[in-house]
Amino acid sequence: MATTSDVTLTNDKHIPRNIIMVVADGMGPAYTTAYRNYADDPSTPAIETGILDEILVGNASTYPAAVSGYVTDSAAAATALATGVKSYNGAIGVDANKQPVESVLQRAKKLGMRTGVAVTSQINHATPASYLAHNESRKNYDAIADSFYDDKVNGHFVANVMLGGGTQYFVREDRNLVTAFTENGYQYVEAYDELASVPAGSDVIGLFAPVGLPAALDDENHHRLSYMTEHAIKHLENPEGFFLLVEASQVDWAGHANDIGSAMAEMDDMSVTVSYLHDYVAAHPDTLVVLTADHSTGGLTIGANGVYEWHPEYLRNMQSSVSSIAVNMVSEDSPAGYAEAQLGFTFEGDDTARVTDIAALPDFEARETALKAFLDEKTNTGWTTGGHTGVDVEVFAFGAGAHAFAGQLDNTDIAKTFFQYLEAK
Amino acid sequence: MATTSDVTLTNDKHIPRNIIMVVADGMGPAYTTAYRNYADDPSTPAIETGILDEILVGNASTYPAAVSGYVTDSAAAATALATGVKSYNGAIGVDANKQPVESVLQRAKKLGMRTGVAVTSQINHATPASYLAHNESRKNYDAIADSFYDDKVNGHFVANVMLGGGTQYFVREDRNLVTAFTENGYQYVEAYDELASVPAGSDVIGLFAPVGLPAALDDENHHRLSYMTEHAIKHLENPEGFFLLVEASQVDWAGHANDIGSAMAEMDDMSVTVSYLHDYVAAHPDTLVVLTADHSTGGLTIGANGVYEWHPEYLRNMQSSVSSIAVNMVSEDSPAGYAEAQLGFTFEGDDTARVTDIAALPDFEARETALKAFLDEKTNTGWTTGGHTGVDVEVFAFGAGAHAFAGQLDNTDIAKTFFQYLEAK
Repeated sequence: MATTSDVTLTNDKHIPRNIIMVVADGMGPAYTTAYRNYADDPSTPAIETGILDEILVGNASTYPAAVSGYVTDSAAAATALATGVKSYNGAIGVDANKQPVESVLQRAKKLGMRTGVAVTSQINHATPASYLAHNESRKNYDAIADSFYDDKVNGHFVANVMLGGGTQYFVREDRNLVTAFTENGYQYVEAYDELASVPAGSDVIGLFAPVGLPAALDDENHHRLSYMTEHAIKHLENPEGFFLLVEASQVDWAGHANDIGSAMAEMDDMSVTVSYLHDYVAAHPDTLVVLTADHSTGGLTIGANGVYEWHPEYLRNMQSSVSSIAVNMVSEDSPAGYAEAQLGFTFEGDDTARVTDIAALPDFEARETALKAFLDEKTNTGWTTGGHTGVDVEVFAFGAGAHAFAGQLDNTDIAKTFFQYLEAK
Repeated sequence: MATTSDVTLTNDKHIPRNIIMVVADGMGPAYTTAYRNYADDPSTPAIETGILDEILVGNASTYPAAVSGYVTDSAAAATALATGVKSYNGAIGVDANKQPVESVLQRAKKLGMRTGVAVTSQINHATPASYLAHNESRKNYDAIADSFYDDKVNGHFVANVMLGGGTQYFVREDRNLVTAFTENGYQYVEAYDELASVPAGSDVIGLFAPVGLPAALDDENHHRLSYMTEHAIKHLENPEGFFLLVEASQVDWAGHANDIGSAMAEMDDMSVTVSYLHDYVAAHPDTLVVLTADHSTGGLTIGANGVYEWHPEYLRNMQSSVSSIAVNMVSEDSPAGYAEAQLGFTFEGDDTARVTDIAALPDFEARETALKAFLDEKTNTGWTTGGHTGVDVEVFAFGAGAHAFAGQLDNTDIAKTFFQYLEAK
């Protein structure tokens, strides 16, 4: 019989001092099941359960304001998660009338807590932006970046810690926001290992890529989200408590690309992050962690085309993303041999001939698409869209106050409960 | 903030006297969200929540025994739900070594409880068969039907009440099982309204179709599952308690056919059934109801092809199934006008011309496929397979003992908990 986690059972009735919201962007139900299968040890008869199985508490609906129908984008969903208010697709921290609505992170800051974001997208992408800023359109990246500096809460910057990508938006010809932050006491880092030397409790802006971070499979650190999360917490901990948004941004990007290999690698980074947070809460039981997705992406299915099979064994040893392979294979003496080594499974049948043909395609995108089709066939993975779908997403929670997230929620319920906890502190 | 149902809160710690297991065959997470959208009142800004939102408690994994990989069929899944044992795809109440394993229904019968099944498939289809019989293959329909009569538990027939389809298997040239049952005191009915005159507490076999029942959209009673369920309970109630399996069998069949209109109509029949059961439990708080799916079917997605839209308004007023329309439209003076009336929405643009062209197709299957494609485009529905997918399914529970089903389960956990409750009575 299933049991909820010990942490939940022992500490779930308390008002949390710290709140950590984890958004796995695009992670519909098929992603979590697929990841369990991907992480399965095939040498044992059972499929091993993982951290997500320990902490599931329910589901959440994701639909946007009625004007945008039944399928949300990441901006409306993030606004709902951040503020408790449904809005139109594209909205960043504004309601359906384009009026600013306060986020739980902004409220936390107003109450004297330290605040931060750690994401694998650019830090001014839709999800973190909805917690930190207000803008009528997610596409106004420069204006959103400016807001991070210009908008103050009780005279303070909105976020003490900002980790992710985005130098393109924060170091611009017309404005250097990094310099502006450092002149106000922020530490600036642009390489992961520089984080280790920043004194605990600092205000930090860390931008590790021009836009989003490299894909997990291609990054020097395949678990860069858990690394950033650990460092963010180090700088946020204080007696007044903290609010931290963590986003596994690129589960969604892999879904948009219909790239099952990267989807599983991004899920793995998310899972390692949540395992770290589970350990953290065991040692800091006054902390609440809630994990959900903003929506599902790609129409991913485990099995397709009438065949009752799925084969994650073709994904478990990937060394780089199909995008990277599609770029690099053309300069290799043996493109198929290179691809075989990078994909991490032994080619059989006509695999070598097929991949050799793929390598001969003159266009990068054609090679990338063909490699994804190759992996979809190997694994028997299905997709229906390059966009989002409307399926409810799972909700996971543990730590102080986790009991309130059980059962069926709407995505707005999560922020509403956070507001209650913040007011009750 | 979400609340669990009152029934759950007030009565969920008791050992149940009666257990009702509801299997919505093929109902993956996308089906429950799609049904909420389908049932939405579009004249209000919010999407109304329904009975399923009140009773969600968690998710369950569905994978079969390792020999069958990561994607289950309905037989292995039903065997897991019925017996708590994982088996191979195709297995009916037998383990991976083809040895019989006791079902919760059989255990209930052994303990002196009354037992029954009410399903919209033939009553010897995979799901009810796994609760009532043991066979190495779901395809052995005649042998499974024979088992319902030949296999005894403590000298008694396994089921007191059997409602669904299947005269083709129970009234055969080589054997008439209906006569055999009636000679042993069973009432036999072959029309829904005959059920009303059967005295409460009877043993009953009701077979309302040669194989499965008509699709909900085409049946004289669009809510035939709730009707059968109500009557089954009438005959099962007794001081020793009862075990009833209810199956919304044809959610799966609609999924296999990639037929979104029938999928929503079958979900509606299931939802009405669960609402009836919710009222029943309010009046009989010693009863436990658990609802789940055995797997998801079709790779259904809410939205497809890169468009962030889904349009259930094209499904809400359907008068008959696309299969029925595809059959009947050819004999109509105005095939498109007939189809428009049956589909229940006003044609616009080139809809009339398109459906007129569909009606001219000489082949029934081509017309049916084209009508489904027409509805998929109207609604922006996606599918990836005519088979099953491996995504976890939702678990819903209310009534006595419902607390044990919260969080992440494996499908085998449900039977394991039922066995514990049966032993604890």
